[in-house]
Amino acid sequence: MQTIPYKTYLDESELPECWYNLRADMAKKPAPLLVPATGKPCTEADLAPVFCEELIRQELDDKTPLFKIPKQIRDFYRMFRPSPLVRAYFLEEALGTPAKIYYKFEGNNTSGSHKLNSAVAQAYYAKAQGLKGVTTETGAGQWGTALSMACAFFGLDCHVFMVKCSYEQKPFRREVMRTYGADVTPSPSMTTDVGRLINAEHPGTTGSLGCAISEAVESAVKTPGYRYVLGSVLNQVLLHQSIIGLEARAAFKKLGTKPDVIIGCAGGGSNLGGLIAPFMGEKLRGEADYRFVAVEPASCPSLTRGKYAYDYCDTGRICPLAKMYTIGADYIPSASHAGGLRFHGMSSTISELYDQGLMEAVSVKQTDVFAAAQQFARTEGILPAPESSHAIRAAIDEALKCKAEGREETILFGLTGTGYFDMTAYQAFNDGKMTDFVPSDADIAASLEKLPKVVGA
Amino acid sequence: MQTIPYKTYLDESELPECWYNLRADMAKKPAPLLVPATGKPCTEADLAPVFCEELIRQELDDKTPLFKIPKQIRDFYRMFRPSPLVRAYFLEEALGTPAKIYYKFEGNNTSGSHKLNSAVAQAYYAKAQGLKGVTTETGAGQWGTALSMACAFFGLDCHVFMVKCSYEQKPFRREVMRTYGADVTPSPSMTTDVGRLINAEHPGTTGSLGCAISEAVESAVKTPGYRYVLGSVLNQVLLHQSIIGLEARAAFKKLGTKPDVIIGCAGGGSNLGGLIAPFMGEKLRGEADYRFVAVEPASCPSLTRGKYAYDYCDTGRICPLAKMYTIGADYIPSASHAGGLRFHGMSSTISELYDQGLMEAVSVKQTDVFAAAQQFARTEGILPAPESSHAIRAAIDEALKCKAEGREETILFGLTGTGYFDMTAYQAFNDGKMTDFVPSDADIAASLEKLPKVVGA
Repeated sequence: MQTIPYKTYLDESELPECWYNLRADMAKKPAPLLVPATGKPCTEADLAPVFCEELIRQELDDKTPLFKIPKQIRDFYRMFRPSPLVRAYFLEEALGTPAKIYYKFEGNNTSGSHKLNSAVAQAYYAKAQGLKGVTTETGAGQWGTALSMACAFFGLDCHVFMVKCSYEQKPFRREVMRTYGADVTPSPSMTTDVGRLINAEHPGTTGSLGCAISEAVESAVKTPGYRYVLGSVLNQVLLHQSIIGLEARAAFKKLGTKPDVIIGCAGGGSNLGGLIAPFMGEKLRGEADYRFVAVEPASCPSLTRGKYAYDYCDTGRICPLAKMYTIGADYIPSASHAGGLRFHGMSSTISELYDQGLMEAVSVKQTDVFAAAQQFARTEGILPAPESSHAIRAAIDEALKCKAEGREETILFGLTGTGYFDMTAYQAFNDGKMTDFVPSDADIAASLEKLPKVVGA
Repeated sequence: MQTIPYKTYLDESELPECWYNLRADMAKKPAPLLVPATGKPCTEADLAPVFCEELIRQELDDKTPLFKIPKQIRDFYRMFRPSPLVRAYFLEEALGTPAKIYYKFEGNNTSGSHKLNSAVAQAYYAKAQGLKGVTTETGAGQWGTALSMACAFFGLDCHVFMVKCSYEQKPFRREVMRTYGADVTPSPSMTTDVGRLINAEHPGTTGSLGCAISEAVESAVKTPGYRYVLGSVLNQVLLHQSIIGLEARAAFKKLGTKPDVIIGCAGGGSNLGGLIAPFMGEKLRGEADYRFVAVEPASCPSLTRGKYAYDYCDTGRICPLAKMYTIGADYIPSASHAGGLRFHGMSSTISELYDQGLMEAVSVKQTDVFAAAQQFARTEGILPAPESSHAIRAAIDEALKCKAEGREETILFGLTGTGYFDMTAYQAFNDGKMTDFVPSDADIAASLEKLPKVVGA
């Protein structure tokens, strides 16, 4: 028997009591959200019609390092957390690498991903504020599922705008949300002004995440007792997701070891930001050093090929502006199978850390990603989500580099979720019919030309 | 914080070292398998063309109480075991019951169910015997998925005959198996004699489990280097599944408490037999007392409305005869949504225990089952498999009885798996379109009239 077990579970009593706010340790803070009309930083009052009060406070606070997790959220967490830190012994053996590979597995809950960590927090605060319901958008469906579960638990209405192509391709995802009592509307719909406008301008469009965001925000603002919630990109989401990194770090301490390199897939940055938070904090405070690697799809390469600039988060341009690495709010990523990574921008916090050279980024093609997913499934047993498999690809590549160079590095990657609702993608791969999409330089340049001109930015 | 945690995980070092063979403690043993032509008990030689050698030894041995689990199987187990024993605090709260409800959750692995416990054992012994591959059948797809995973791990070919209606209704299940490298053939097929015969006799049939078994057995016997493996009913399967009960009992000991009543869904009996094994052993040895409840679908009620008699396990009548509670090998259960519980018979061990009055059985209707599934999903977070939800229904009913009677009973039920591939069923329920099927007495009587006449039985 190995000294280090396959799976390390913290005890429920060791569940973190606070979320960690990485921004508090950043000397140069992420740029603030701006009001598009004035170019001025958003205040609590600006955001109050859209977001829940406590979540706005979390969003704007870049000084407080720790936020206490309310008891009801911790009780909910105890249904599926602490999540295991797993040593990938069988994958190491298959690769013949001297590297030690660990993954923090967030897929052992019905939502199928880490999204539930923030969903329960956001639903809790909405309920605590006395709201009737929340609206949101979902692409791949993981966030919508997570929010439906959290709303069912706290007795909140949940209205999900689901990107139309996902709504049609993933009827089972939709059905899980309905089982949890959520209303699911394909987007663009005819129930909002922005939806009608987009349908008129692009007849027959199958939608996009940016467009669904616009509809969800409009619906929340116009419905009494409702607010809008979002599953990625925002600071508040990274704050809630810090529980991933906090648990991972505690588990490594328990094992008496630590990672050299930490790898996460990056769409809006929710998992990556949460996974790296406490480790990056140590690095910022000069207590330890780690390498951090963001992995994005070659089809939607905001960090590796985008521009660090203010941009809209949504297609309808009704949201605040965020400074981020972006390939442009108008850019429509190809219909890749990693719906959760098809966002044109990247969390402001991740963007700022990347801009400061504190982390690396790579992009990978989806056929390579699914080859890694298949190898992982066959050796480690778990069928990974396409999004998560981006991190697997990079971790395998890193482990093979260690093999070539004879290095005994310790690798940690985030296994954000399972792929049980992504079998259409696996089928394309199994049938040898999967293709790769890489945007041309001209396409990206054309999209970036349309970035908003921001007063004073 | 409660004294008892939500989830109790044993340490990997506490993973059971042996499977427990309940038959060893039974004074009156389960009836032996018989060779149909002679009516004589099957010998190792009779079974050798069909099954792996070591598995035959396990099948026929009703004296040895403990079988050591080989190291490679235990290593594989460590990827997903020990599985958690969960206290259903939120369900208790929702029901307002004084009962304490626990469930042993077997769904946190990619196969989605407890089937992986026996699949890895059977694949291991097939590999150890130097075989090239194995064949099997699958209905709902959980067993086929589990076997595909185990075969991918040990480098064995895996050929799955999947009941045609499932093959067509559950393309994603099929795709998971293909991702693990399995060949999946819809049954009845034109690749076996028995398949061609059934297709000729019943043109357009969408198949049944009994028919797929016949095809898988024929294929194994006729292909050099192949054997047949089965995911339920057999003694060897109950032996492997005893790990569920052994872990549950160890976890209860750790918590300093024990169940009063143990509830499991029952199709062929693999989960139920495994869950109750060590507890029933205590009862048989006079060390403790428990109530045991088998829960079967009203549409396929072998224990509650069948006959205890020798019958065929398969439609093609090429398998040995087993003495079991059966509604007849020719009985075609209605197309309920719990494919895993649509078997006409019941494990000989469970049947014998039931016949001796050592356990109870109830049958439940599927609309009631899905109401329980929805309530469980919304309170406990996990979206259960339709099969598992039969046990949930019975556990909730028991807890409500406790409430009515003011009793503080401790209930344990087996949550065998997740329902992520069963969303068509949930959709029918969500849309109010699910119906119930209960066979008439005349239908069952007609089926039972066709039971084989067995020499000396």
